[in-house]
Amino acid sequence: MKPANKTTGPRLRLVLEPDVAIGPGKIDLLDQIRETGSIAAAGRRMRMSYKRAWQLVEEMNQAFREPAVTTSRGGAEKGGAALTPLGLEVLDRYRRMEAETERAIAGDLAALRSLLSDPAGPP
Amino acid sequence: MKPANKTTGPRLRLVLEPDVAIGPGKIDLLDQIRETGSIAAAGRRMRMSYKRAWQLVEEMNQAFREPAVTTSRGGAEKGGAALTPLGLEVLDRYRRMEAETERAIAGDLAALRSLLSDPAGPP
Repeated sequence: MKPANKTTGPRLRLVLEPDVAIGPGKIDLLDQIRETGSIAAAGRRMRMSYKRAWQLVEEMNQAFREPAVTTSRGGAEKGGAALTPLGLEVLDRYRRMEAETERAIAGDLAALRSLLSDPAGPP
Repeated sequence: MKPANKTTGPRLRLVLEPDVAIGPGKIDLLDQIRETGSIAAAGRRMRMSYKRAWQLVEEMNQAFREPAVTTSRGGAEKGGAALTPLGLEVLDRYRRMEAETERAIAGDLAALRSLLSDPAGPP
């Protein structure tokens, strides 16, 4: 996981519909659910409340034509959770778009960083 | 100006240093200052408080090696404001990076949008 703002570089937020957006928060949550098999554990790793983690999962599950995350027991805190094939596709595609973005803007980003009052080297 | 979340597409946030970031809010503010010649007017157009608009300008002015915005009278509400050459460079470079990002991820973005429960056509 790449926690927001802990490392420098671009952050990509995708507004898919006027009220549907996917960004680093939801994507890192999918990544953590895939790793931990649990929405509660994923939320803890991201220092996100259990309620907030569930809310983000619900938003994704409603936005896409199939759920992105399935749980073995409804809202039970100890129930296991897993990404569906659609959830994995969303995660993989976003990570690819992140990499494409980094490649596309690398030169301009370096130029922008050189304008900082205290320019550091590459991250 | 492209107001955040009013239109679909990518939003680019650039974390230049762990505590220095540039995103749609600051960039749209620079755009509006360039258009209106006033921080107050720019803030109003963005439905942002005057205090918040000044805070964002201060952040940019401190982050870069030269100010991005100059004002003819300190913090006076009616004082004129203009982008410096550095401010213009930051604005132009960000807009180019936005365009580069849109080009780089267009295919994957369309694929992601096709997974929505109610996929619309291109924006």
